[in-house]
Amino acid sequence: MRTTQYLLATLREDPSDAELISHKLMLRAGLIRKQASGLYTWLPTGLKVLRKVEQIVREEMDATGASEVLMPMVQSADLWEESGRWGDFGPELLRIKDRHHRDFCLGPTHEEVITAMIRDEIRSYKQCPAVYYQIQSKFRDEVRPRFGVMRAREFLMKDAYSFHTSEESLEETYQVMYQAYSNIFNRLGLEFRAVIADTGAIGGSTSHEFHVLADSGEDAIAFSTGSDYAANVEKAEAIAPSETVPNASQEMEKIATPDAKTIDQVSQQLGMPNTQCLKTLIVKGSSETQPVVAICLRGDHELNELKVEKHELVAAPLEMASDEIIKQTTGANPGSIGPVNLNIPMLVDRDAAVMADFSCGANEDGFHFVGVNWGRDATIGEVFDCRNIVEGDTSPDGKGTLEVKRGIEVGHIFQLGTKYSEAMKANVLSENGKSVTLTMGCYGIGVSRIVAAAIEQNHDDYGIIWPDAIAPFQVAIVPMNMHRSHRVAEHAEKLYQALTEAGFEVLFDDRKERPGVMFADIELIGVPHRIVISERGIDAGNYEYKHRRHNDKIDVEIDNALTFLKEKLA
Amino acid sequence: MRTTQYLLATLREDPSDAELISHKLMLRAGLIRKQASGLYTWLPTGLKVLRKVEQIVREEMDATGASEVLMPMVQSADLWEESGRWGDFGPELLRIKDRHHRDFCLGPTHEEVITAMIRDEIRSYKQCPAVYYQIQSKFRDEVRPRFGVMRAREFLMKDAYSFHTSEESLEETYQVMYQAYSNIFNRLGLEFRAVIADTGAIGGSTSHEFHVLADSGEDAIAFSTGSDYAANVEKAEAIAPSETVPNASQEMEKIATPDAKTIDQVSQQLGMPNTQCLKTLIVKGSSETQPVVAICLRGDHELNELKVEKHELVAAPLEMASDEIIKQTTGANPGSIGPVNLNIPMLVDRDAAVMADFSCGANEDGFHFVGVNWGRDATIGEVFDCRNIVEGDTSPDGKGTLEVKRGIEVGHIFQLGTKYSEAMKANVLSENGKSVTLTMGCYGIGVSRIVAAAIEQNHDDYGIIWPDAIAPFQVAIVPMNMHRSHRVAEHAEKLYQALTEAGFEVLFDDRKERPGVMFADIELIGVPHRIVISERGIDAGNYEYKHRRHNDKIDVEIDNALTFLKEKLA
Repeated sequence: MRTTQYLLATLREDPSDAELISHKLMLRAGLIRKQASGLYTWLPTGLKVLRKVEQIVREEMDATGASEVLMPMVQSADLWEESGRWGDFGPELLRIKDRHHRDFCLGPTHEEVITAMIRDEIRSYKQCPAVYYQIQSKFRDEVRPRFGVMRAREFLMKDAYSFHTSEESLEETYQVMYQAYSNIFNRLGLEFRAVIADTGAIGGSTSHEFHVLADSGEDAIAFSTGSDYAANVEKAEAIAPSETVPNASQEMEKIATPDAKTIDQVSQQLGMPNTQCLKTLIVKGSSETQPVVAICLRGDHELNELKVEKHELVAAPLEMASDEIIKQTTGANPGSIGPVNLNIPMLVDRDAAVMADFSCGANEDGFHFVGVNWGRDATIGEVFDCRNIVEGDTSPDGKGTLEVKRGIEVGHIFQLGTKYSEAMKANVLSENGKSVTLTMGCYGIGVSRIVAAAIEQNHDDYGIIWPDAIAPFQVAIVPMNMHRSHRVAEHAEKLYQALTEAGFEVLFDDRKERPGVMFADIELIGVPHRIVISERGIDAGNYEYKHRRHNDKIDVEIDNALTFLKEKLA
Repeated sequence: MRTTQYLLATLREDPSDAELISHKLMLRAGLIRKQASGLYTWLPTGLKVLRKVEQIVREEMDATGASEVLMPMVQSADLWEESGRWGDFGPELLRIKDRHHRDFCLGPTHEEVITAMIRDEIRSYKQCPAVYYQIQSKFRDEVRPRFGVMRAREFLMKDAYSFHTSEESLEETYQVMYQAYSNIFNRLGLEFRAVIADTGAIGGSTSHEFHVLADSGEDAIAFSTGSDYAANVEKAEAIAPSETVPNASQEMEKIATPDAKTIDQVSQQLGMPNTQCLKTLIVKGSSETQPVVAICLRGDHELNELKVEKHELVAAPLEMASDEIIKQTTGANPGSIGPVNLNIPMLVDRDAAVMADFSCGANEDGFHFVGVNWGRDATIGEVFDCRNIVEGDTSPDGKGTLEVKRGIEVGHIFQLGTKYSEAMKANVLSENGKSVTLTMGCYGIGVSRIVAAAIEQNHDDYGIIWPDAIAPFQVAIVPMNMHRSHRVAEHAEKLYQALTEAGFEVLFDDRKERPGVMFADIELIGVPHRIVISERGIDAGNYEYKHRRHNDKIDVEIDNALTFLKEKLA
């Protein structure tokens, strides 16, 4: 492709309305343009990347044996009434009326359409497992679309659905999909993690999210240095420490701690590390007979609300008790409370349970105890996982320790169960002639989102650094002052022809621009391989080669250039 | 693909709600299923065909140098307000409101979005011509969706747009597109005609429609046996006959023709062929000073309203004069009127103008003249093309004669002009630094409609007969009673492996079905090449080969089968 015949559409300045680096770079590198809030046009360069991602997804889906279909994006409300989601789904579901005032919606997902189709087409267990996928534009009416295509309203998605007559079959297909997703992200050349996830609004039981790792990611992910274990930080288990409780070596003593309200202030006043201080929180209980529950954590640990609110004694969603209630219950204000003589239900975090000779509030404003020991000085409550994991924690599978990184969710696989098939009566005849409700799985990939996530993970101050597999062009030819040098022009044209004929995707910068402008554009767009052709180089018998990811420039003999590039691009 | 692991979804019976043969066959062959009125899911077999059509369209668009983009299907009303179409477009434009009550629509076409994009991205004449295309789902809220995907509400379309700084450049790109469209339909293996067309609601001047020929087509097309000339029958010019007017050989005479109201009745009563009778019609004129105009046609010819209403004397849209006005103007009722002593403006069709010794109404109820000659008996009005062409007419380009066939419109190319660029202020700087309004072309292909049109043109009583280029599978392997014959199974598996490894798309019917059922399905789906493997054949050292389009079966030596098929499929 010659830049003079191409909508390069690069911008010099950062667009003012873009916050995220991928959003800025997608605009600046001429990948997308905004049409309206959350609605984008994919320009030629962006679409080339999008199609490459799409093709890798398609090939790996085909390799699983799944069949591609294409469902309508406009869906009849009748189906959503059947599943019960017409009423349940929030305003993200864009509801529309056609010219005859019939209700439709723009599909944000296709469980209803596929389940209705399967109900009509699949009659026997012999036709199961049945696995279908599509790659299609979806619409979700986000209340505040932002970050470019990362959270757009219209976006390209791969959604797959599987239908089974047994849990074992669903589990098997789920594993196949898990592997296919891993293959996809490996082929895309992206660093990713499959993490255990909450199933959220779609329903069902087991589920994994696939995250592309990037500092700007919305989610924090804990993963093991010694195994495949990975989970959203909120879901990662903080396992019981292997240490046993040390023996008590101090006597309990009450010490004045005026104005020490936070753990850090207490730790400082007492001259003890915060790992030696016990933090006590009072939260609302789940019943009127037990209106409050105490939570004890090691001073350096943070409460995990999701874990604690799952305990039967605790109100869900979690709510902290008011200062008034705390005073009434403990006799002190928050900041001076502790488990000694505290007569309410208590959850003690696993790490707090192995503390000895610790400090805690004395349930008297301005006083703390030191040298406290469980059992001797305070009755220990139920030991329970109450905290967020931190880096360095032992992995829940016992292998290695946990690291925390940030990730962007680009894929999600669910074992859906019978939520839709039951509501919509998708049954088949089993081997022994009985009607059974199909069990479902569903498997999504945000195809357009992957493009943004790839940039979040792969960029520098100069622009995008595409993984080879999804680069819009494989190689760029940058001739120096070609319009003044016939020799440079001739060499550039010849190399362009040769590479194009060899089937490579070449961006040939034949503009009448200064070298600096050309270099900046090629780096901004992120073309992996770059060849510079100049008078001086030709005199020395060389072209100059550089990879976008590395700083070193290599002189390549002109006669050897094609072979050299073919090897690099292979 | 093994049929046991595939959603074949063939139906034995004709679906009751399908009228058109392609609609019936697409349902019966398992290509599509209806989700709601005008909304279809493409099942695996249908999608394979659709993707092949799409890929051929994409390749030929790329070959023109056009760049692929992808615009949002949901479009902001603001752009449609700018172009003036928000108010103008009928209820086919599905207008929607998002959660913030802002107006949007589902794109039936993308002139507004692309023009807005070009206005921002293209600054200079140097960037022109700029040609972009996309392949995308469109939505048109048809009042009565019907004929399956032939007239669906959601459909796949290729739409392209070009931007120019001169008419010459537009004309050039128009020719390139014309050629690309011809290449596409040739590669698809379809019999088609490019016909001169009205531009309709989109506006602009020159335009061609591309029609796939099929008896069920909605449009009548006239085309020459001796040249490329083709036009919609309504637009085809009826050129002046080469004959000069014969000399008068009879005297004018008035004859009673009681109760003869139609040309056929007159012709019968007078014992003259209707080609010798003149038909006179009275239509409304375009001004109050000339309230009526007479149109004279040869008795066997039909009035072409579109042609006549374009004449400045005639009211548009065309309206026939009332009986009362006719009586008042001519003195007679329709059926007895003619040009003799008729003192109103008159258009005489070119063929009517070369008649001699003809009959016509005497402007007196129940009487006709015979032996009438122009000039001597009646003043001839303006000679004008007033009629529909008929088969056998000389082609307007003088080469060959016209035939009339029916066609299905699958493509349309327009020279749009400045309708959108002017309204939306899409200007660039010209070579001499002045701002000029861009001139546009637009070019559409109904990708999903092509699938239906291909079937309308290619089918028989047994099902679809795909052109090779778009067949869902290239070859089918049909083993006879494979589940009872280990030998047949082994041969079938081996051939399936070999063909699949050679990169061919094979449908391997490994179902436990009777041969008749398998043959019927393979023919219904329309797989071009079929191999039957049987015990008897193996004993004789042969497989049986048949092409879907031909009746003869060929015995192919087993050892030679792979080579034979590779040649056939190449």
